[in-house]
Amino acid sequence: MEKTKRSERLGALTRILTDTPNRIHTLSEFCERFGAAKSTISEDIDLVSASLERNDLGRLETVAGAAGGVRYRAIPSKAKAHRILMEVAEKLSQPGRMLPGGFLYNSDISSDSVIAQSMGEILAAQYYDRKPDFVLTMETKGIPIALMTARMLDVKLVIARRDSRAYEGSAVKINYIAGGGNDRIETMALARRAVQPGQRALIIDDFMKGGGTLQGMVDMMREFQAEVVGVGVMIATAEPKAKRVEGAKSLLILEGFDREKGTAIVHPSEMYQ
Amino acid sequence: MEKTKRSERLGALTRILTDTPNRIHTLSEFCERFGAAKSTISEDIDLVSASLERNDLGRLETVAGAAGGVRYRAIPSKAKAHRILMEVAEKLSQPGRMLPGGFLYNSDISSDSVIAQSMGEILAAQYYDRKPDFVLTMETKGIPIALMTARMLDVKLVIARRDSRAYEGSAVKINYIAGGGNDRIETMALARRAVQPGQRALIIDDFMKGGGTLQGMVDMMREFQAEVVGVGVMIATAEPKAKRVEGAKSLLILEGFDREKGTAIVHPSEMYQ
Repeated sequence: MEKTKRSERLGALTRILTDTPNRIHTLSEFCERFGAAKSTISEDIDLVSASLERNDLGRLETVAGAAGGVRYRAIPSKAKAHRILMEVAEKLSQPGRMLPGGFLYNSDISSDSVIAQSMGEILAAQYYDRKPDFVLTMETKGIPIALMTARMLDVKLVIARRDSRAYEGSAVKINYIAGGGNDRIETMALARRAVQPGQRALIIDDFMKGGGTLQGMVDMMREFQAEVVGVGVMIATAEPKAKRVEGAKSLLILEGFDREKGTAIVHPSEMYQ
Repeated sequence: MEKTKRSERLGALTRILTDTPNRIHTLSEFCERFGAAKSTISEDIDLVSASLERNDLGRLETVAGAAGGVRYRAIPSKAKAHRILMEVAEKLSQPGRMLPGGFLYNSDISSDSVIAQSMGEILAAQYYDRKPDFVLTMETKGIPIALMTARMLDVKLVIARRDSRAYEGSAVKINYIAGGGNDRIETMALARRAVQPGQRALIIDDFMKGGGTLQGMVDMMREFQAEVVGVGVMIATAEPKAKRVEGAKSLLILEGFDREKGTAIVHPSEMYQ
C-alpha cells in the first residue's frame, strides 16, 4: 500500500484498536495496512496512547513476546467510574421505580446500550487479571451488561436459559433456589456444547438480591467442570447481607426504598466511592 | 484547558466520536475539551473522517442547523458487509449445527459480541433514514444483535418477555402464533412504561422461520400505538417463503440442510451478494 501521512493514520489506528478491546494487534498488521515502517507505527501508537490516557478514554498496552503487540483496554479512572455510577444511581433513584415486593424497575437502565457499555467497561476492568475464557449470564435482564463485559474482555458470552429450547441441542439442566424471600425452586438449562471442561467462567448479572440465581450459575459451572474466576453484578441489595453466592462484587448498592417519596436509595459500592 | 497539538487530539477525538455512534457532537464541545479554535477542530474532523473512510471504518457526517455538529456512523461498504456476512455464513455452515426439527444451532454466533456488533452495524445502516425511537426484540437470542443495532442508532433497546415478571411492573400481554410448523399459541409481555404512543419501533431478531414471533411484536406495537418502521433479522429460512410478518429484511438466508454432510446451507441475502 502507498505511504500515508501520520494525520491520515491516527483516526483509523484509533478506531481499529478501540473497536477490538483486549485484542492484541501486531505492529506488522499496521505496517502492512498503512505502508509505514515499524518505528513510525510505534510512534503513532504512542501518540494515540497519550491522547486516550490524557482524556481518560482508556489505554493502549504493549504486550511483549512472540504473540506480542498492542491492545486497547477501556479501563476508566476511579474518578470516571465514580461519576458514571453516580449518574446511574441517580437514574435508578427517580420516582416511580419502586415495584411491589421490594423490586426495582431497572429494565430500561440495564438494556440501555450506553449504560450497558459503561458497566461492561467498569466490570471488565476488575477481571482482566483473572483471564476468563467466557462470560456467563442467565437470561434475560443481565444479557446487555454481560455482553458488553464480554466485548471488553474479547471473550464469548454464554447465556443460561430458564428451560432447554429445541434449537439449543442437548443441554444440562439443574435446579436452584431463587431467593427473593420465598425460596422458589427454579430450573436453569445450558447447551452442552456451550462450555468446555477446564474453561474459566466470569459470571455477570444485572441484579443480586439473595444471590440464588448467581449460585445456580456457579453450580452449573461445576457440572461443566469449569472454573468460576469471578462473580460481578451491576446492583446488589444491601439486605439480606448474607448472599447465597460467595465473593460477588457489585458496582451499585440498593440500600432500600424511601416509601414516602416512592424512590429507591442507590449509591456506588464502597470501592467506587 | 491548555492548547494541544493535532497529534495529541486525533486519538481522543476519534474515540469519542466512534464510541457514540449516531450521536451529534458540537464543535464547541471539542473546542472546550482540547482548547483549540473551531477552524482547527474542523480540520481535525476532516482528517479523522478521511482516515476512517479510506479504511472502510465508517464515516463522520456534518449535520447543519441549530442542533448541528458532527456524528459517526459505522456504515460498512457493500464489499465489507458482504465479506463479514460470508464469514458468518461459513461459521453457520460448520458441521454439527443441524438440530432435530430443522433448527440451526446459532446461539454461540448470535451472542458473540464481535459478530453481534458487525450485525448491528449492517442492520443499523439500513434504518438510519427511518429514524426509529427504539429497537424492540423478544427475549432471548436476539438481544445481543438488537442491543448492538440500538447502540449504532443511539436509541434505547426494549425487550419483550415470554411472561410478565414481578420486577417489570404492569405489563401488556398478548397471544401470538409461533410458527415453526405446529402453530403453537404463545404469550408475549411488555412493560407498560417501556413504550410511549406515537414512538417509532424498529423490530430486530436473530432468526425468522415462519415470522410468527415478529408478527407478534408488530401486534404488540399496535397495542402501544407505536409505529413499526422496519423489521430486520440476522438469518431467515428460505422456506416457508410466505412469512407471517410483512416486509422483513434478512442479512443471511438459510436455504436448508445438506443432510448427508449434516451441515446448513447459508448465504448472504440478495442485497449483500
